[in-house]
Amino acid sequence: MRNGGGGNPRACGKRAAAFRFKRSTGDWRELVADPNIDVVDICSPNHLHKEMALEAIRHGKHVYSEKPLALNARDARLMVDAAELAGVKTLVGFNYIKNPTAQLAKQIIKRGEIGEVIHFYGTHNEDYMADPLVPIHWHCFKEMAGLGALGDLAAHIVNMAQYLVGDIREVCGDLKIVVPQRPASAGSSENIAVENEDQAHAMVRFEGGAHGMIETSRVASGRKMGLTWAITGTKGAMSFTQERMAELKLYLQSDPEEHQGFRTLLVGPAHPDYGSFCMGAGHGIGFNDQKTVEVRALINGIAADVPLWPDFAEGWKVSRILNAIALSHQQGRWVNVSDVV
Amino acid sequence: MRNGGGGNPRACGKRAAAFRFKRSTGDWRELVADPNIDVVDICSPNHLHKEMALEAIRHGKHVYSEKPLALNARDARLMVDAAELAGVKTLVGFNYIKNPTAQLAKQIIKRGEIGEVIHFYGTHNEDYMADPLVPIHWHCFKEMAGLGALGDLAAHIVNMAQYLVGDIREVCGDLKIVVPQRPASAGSSENIAVENEDQAHAMVRFEGGAHGMIETSRVASGRKMGLTWAITGTKGAMSFTQERMAELKLYLQSDPEEHQGFRTLLVGPAHPDYGSFCMGAGHGIGFNDQKTVEVRALINGIAADVPLWPDFAEGWKVSRILNAIALSHQQGRWVNVSDVV
Amino acid sequence: MRNGGGGNPRACGKRAAAFRFKRSTGDWRELVADPNIDVVDICSPNHLHKEMALEAIRHGKHVYSEKPLALNARDARLMVDAAELAGVKTLVGFNYIKNPTAQLAKQIIKRGEIGEVIHFYGTHNEDYMADPLVPIHWHCFKEMAGLGALGDLAAHIVNMAQYLVGDIREVCGDLKIVVPQRPASAGSSENIAVENEDQAHAMVRFEGGAHGMIETSRVASGRKMGLTWAITGTKGAMSFTQERMAELKLYLQSDPEEHQGFRTLLVGPAHPDYGSFCMGAGHGIGFNDQKTVEVRALINGIAADVPLWPDFAEGWKVSRILNAIALSHQQGRWVNVSDVV
Amino acid sequence: MRNGGGGNPRACGKRAAAFRFKRSTGDWRELVADPNIDVVDICSPNHLHKEMALEAIRHGKHVYSEKPLALNARDARLMVDAAELAGVKTLVGFNYIKNPTAQLAKQIIKRGEIGEVIHFYGTHNEDYMADPLVPIHWHCFKEMAGLGALGDLAAHIVNMAQYLVGDIREVCGDLKIVVPQRPASAGSSENIAVENEDQAHAMVRFEGGAHGMIETSRVASGRKMGLTWAITGTKGAMSFTQERMAELKLYLQSDPEEHQGFRTLLVGPAHPDYGSFCMGAGHGIGFNDQKTVEVRALINGIAADVPLWPDFAEGWKVSRILNAIALSHQQGRWVNVSDVV
Repeated sequence: MRNGGGGNPRACGKRAAAFRFKRSTGDWRELVADPNIDVVDICSPNHLHKEMALEAIRHGKHVYSEKPLALNARDARLMVDAAELAGVKTLVGFNYIKNPTAQLAKQIIKRGEIGEVIHFYGTHNEDYMADPLVPIHWHCFKEMAGLGALGDLAAHIVNMAQYLVGDIREVCGDLKIVVPQRPASAGSSENIAVENEDQAHAMVRFEGGAHGMIETSRVASGRKMGLTWAITGTKGAMSFTQERMAELKLYLQSDPEEHQGFRTLLVGPAHPDYGSFCMGAGHGIGFNDQKTVEVRALINGIAADVPLWPDFAEGWKVSRILNAIALSHQQGRWVNVSDVV
Repeated sequence: MRNGGGGNPRACGKRAAAFRFKRSTGDWRELVADPNIDVVDICSPNHLHKEMALEAIRHGKHVYSEKPLALNARDARLMVDAAELAGVKTLVGFNYIKNPTAQLAKQIIKRGEIGEVIHFYGTHNEDYMADPLVPIHWHCFKEMAGLGALGDLAAHIVNMAQYLVGDIREVCGDLKIVVPQRPASAGSSENIAVENEDQAHAMVRFEGGAHGMIETSRVASGRKMGLTWAITGTKGAMSFTQERMAELKLYLQSDPEEHQGFRTLLVGPAHPDYGSFCMGAGHGIGFNDQKTVEVRALINGIAADVPLWPDFAEGWKVSRILNAIALSHQQGRWVNVSDVV
Repeated sequence: MRNGGGGNPRACGKRAAAFRFKRSTGDWRELVADPNIDVVDICSPNHLHKEMALEAIRHGKHVYSEKPLALNARDARLMVDAAELAGVKTLVGFNYIKNPTAQLAKQIIKRGEIGEVIHFYGTHNEDYMADPLVPIHWHCFKEMAGLGALGDLAAHIVNMAQYLVGDIREVCGDLKIVVPQRPASAGSSENIAVENEDQAHAMVRFEGGAHGMIETSRVASGRKMGLTWAITGTKGAMSFTQERMAELKLYLQSDPEEHQGFRTLLVGPAHPDYGSFCMGAGHGIGFNDQKTVEVRALINGIAADVPLWPDFAEGWKVSRILNAIALSHQQGRWVNVSDVV
Repeated sequence: MRNGGGGNPRACGKRAAAFRFKRSTGDWRELVADPNIDVVDICSPNHLHKEMALEAIRHGKHVYSEKPLALNARDARLMVDAAELAGVKTLVGFNYIKNPTAQLAKQIIKRGEIGEVIHFYGTHNEDYMADPLVPIHWHCFKEMAGLGALGDLAAHIVNMAQYLVGDIREVCGDLKIVVPQRPASAGSSENIAVENEDQAHAMVRFEGGAHGMIETSRVASGRKMGLTWAITGTKGAMSFTQERMAELKLYLQSDPEEHQGFRTLLVGPAHPDYGSFCMGAGHGIGFNDQKTVEVRALINGIAADVPLWPDFAEGWKVSRILNAIALSHQQGRWVNVSDVV
């Protein structure tokens, strides 16, 4: 369900034919009500997530939704409650934590190899709107997208932070619209105001005591897939960039002094979920492979009736943190995440 | 057809069931003769390629074979001739040249952006047999594998060299068995002699005048997927490592002096065959994605009846070069590739 | 003047002999009063900077002081005023901005090549106190060092931010003592409380409108010389790490789409202050070379009677920013730098 | 003695004044005969090394000469014999092996940490003549320079190979003039023929059994200081590039499988000769620092009357290897280094 409700049936039919789908419909409600369907995958613009999800849940479907879960934490909470009440399974498409490299990082932390985490620095920067002549887009409007770079990009790095370090308790953020107006369409001389942040950053404090920084931008020239993080522990450190998604840098204080240095681990069959793709280390993992891991988790989780993660509850937590960052910016002070309704 | 002739039907059935294949057989000849089959994919050990391919060709099948095409150039030539006579299409699984990054490199050379190529340095190093306790394996026997690291690994980088720089005319090589004996099986105290080279390298001269070096090893500690190359031209240079398969380094002499430097291109929708995988640059390409590009080329090529490349003729060229390198080592002199029968 | 007042004359004599200095004294006041001396270089622990500098200025000496200039902004201000009144020249040892690579970055910004700066992320992380068994040190006491990692390390990256992006107007910071107690000496079982921050970070806003983040730590495992920065502009971006001090990464949006990527510039004779060290690019610049550039600037500046930078006024600005970060942490709110006295 | 005999006394005087040298002379013979001089440093073009060195030795001076030692191995041998007979000390300016990082690599090999060396790949590529409009230069003439890129650049990497892996026994090489003619001077329309190789490479075999490859070029676009090497051992591997001269990559097979990867060692006080430059690791070493290590070795070696290395005997060995590579190219066969007179 990439397109919103009221889709053009002819366009839908065309697209379905291109993909050789057996059937198609221009009316998502029809689809969601179909008794032959078990799981609904929501890839529509943000403002439709809630409505579609609630309707799917009402029909007892499991729901797999793109991030951010909703336009704001309050809506996300409604979705969590509906899913819990209906007893359906949910999954949010935070696919970057499904990367074998991310899972390896998680293992390393869990085994205590870098000690207690004391600092996290994470970014999700891209440059798809760096050029001020890139036309306005639904992502730029509050009503359709909610937040800007925070919702579209930072949702991923916040989820990654929660996955690797644990729940974020307090935040203090700063937001900025860098390009105040954009052309109505490519080449148009009509300009329309951008309503939400092009870039933002925040200081955060984790429940476990670690401090962290989150940075996001959709106008960060040169960053094509700038999901990156650096984690410092009391006994070591790790760093990662999604642009080299099959590599993890690891530093262990326990190495002998003359051999200390960050090592570059190439993800391989010794690491989680890689062996299904390739028998040899270093042969590489692509964007779609992590999506495959995610979808397998969804299917297996439903088939075996086991909990999925990151579910809507996690999606709500992320939304709450993003809302807290925006609120903190408005009020120029630290905000407790739990104070966001 | 991963397993050889006379396969155990029960094992085949089990494997087929695991993959939910509709049918299976322990007898590859039965498969190859099946009139419902259009294309045969040969993934068996090297010594079976010839027999299987010839039989498939005899039944008018198109053939998609793993590299090296055959145990030696002479056998490869027979396969080329048979396919030509039968009018079937052939493709050899040199999948690394299907990587969008490799295709981008080819474009850059073709457009003359780095001038005339004057030097090529290419490697395919791995470390899967670096540990001397890794047991003997069919790759180590002349009768089953032909050459050692040259056939198993260098085939790829030689094909890459031919793809990017053009035909190799002369070679002068050096081969070495580093681990002369290996355990008969894991933990066994019985040792069996390794019959072919663990590592090899060669100087080469291209038809176009460029000089080059080829290096290969299956005992190169630390190299997990060490297919790498550096190409120097009269106006620029490029370099690449498969361990970072979505990156290309490019240097252009035409850049202003104070801004000269290798730039790191992240493969994206502006480059060949990437857009089908992802709309954003830098999101990454995995090993299986290049295999997908290869298989699509196979299917589309057969459907549209257009030439495929690298076909058996290219596979034969590569085998001839590898044989020439081995011959040159034996005789301690330069060998003309065309002198290899 | 590395050691404080009341130095042991015998130890001083020994050290002077080792370096073949013609003379030495255990009493810095004697030195500072010597009419044969033009310039005084202060390398003593932080709490002595003020007293030594004021005394030197009283005797009409030019003063070259290590950073941070003083224990706090108020003291730094006194030193600025004294120097101005006496008409002597001052220089603070912020040597990292003297690196040819830093100067190149400044040029690129000044020429507008990356457009208007919209974001700065800078760190100065090291791990010299990452091991909790590293004994207590004067840097850990407020009375001797003032701030912790902020004073010892962040002073450099704050100065770099000011050099590259301009004056910082507002800050909001967070500080943390990670290792609350340390052994009194190596191997001692007596523990002494650490009084100032092991790590800190802050959001900043520049006068010019850019947003930024500053991060510092003396317990950042694996970071040996973690002075790094990434600058995003409206037309490009740059990044740098001091551990590869002869390299600058530069991205220009104006590059054709298929050739976009960060280029790695190796500093060379085409760039500022490099040619005096080496005729060839890429041959490398070391830590002491940037110190040499600094000292040359000092000597030439005094000889030619031209202004030096970063002078005490800049040292004071940096101290003020660091104090503002600490204050903001205490009060949980943004602080205007100009509100710090 | 940078300029040749018969130097213009006025030019010499000017230069000496610029450096505030107390005296100067246009006649190197006068200098070399001066009884107040202990050591003569020869930085003149290659064809003058022999004459100057022999004359200096005749006057009982210790001699420190730039590489290559002479125009050919035969001349180098004469210089070795003369020095031995006179009992003077000699040192050749192969400064790259004095880099603390190179010394660390040597230690690691010596301690057996990467096992027995089985492969060496080394380059010294630069691009100072990549542009065909760079005018002709004494390096391009056989009478003044002897070999081309081999003598000017490969001398360094051959010496590095000997230092790290041991003596080279056999070679097989290939040479090429890429730009056959160059302008007589900048902008001139008169073209003059280049007499020696712009690029060359060779396969080598070490006494200890390892195989290797050497590559060199003065027309390798983009390589500013392309002295690089990769060493493979039976238990690990290392790699290095002079453009990041303070880093060593090290891979140890003994690391647990899930933590295997090349680690980046930043040279520091735990490594040889670094502590004299800086107390902290990762702060960087520059080109001139390795030269400083070299000169200290020279001075201390003479003062303490201990052997120096690489002395003229090593310089002769390098010349012999380079000559063997050229000879092997002429004859299209492997050449035993000991067969070169």
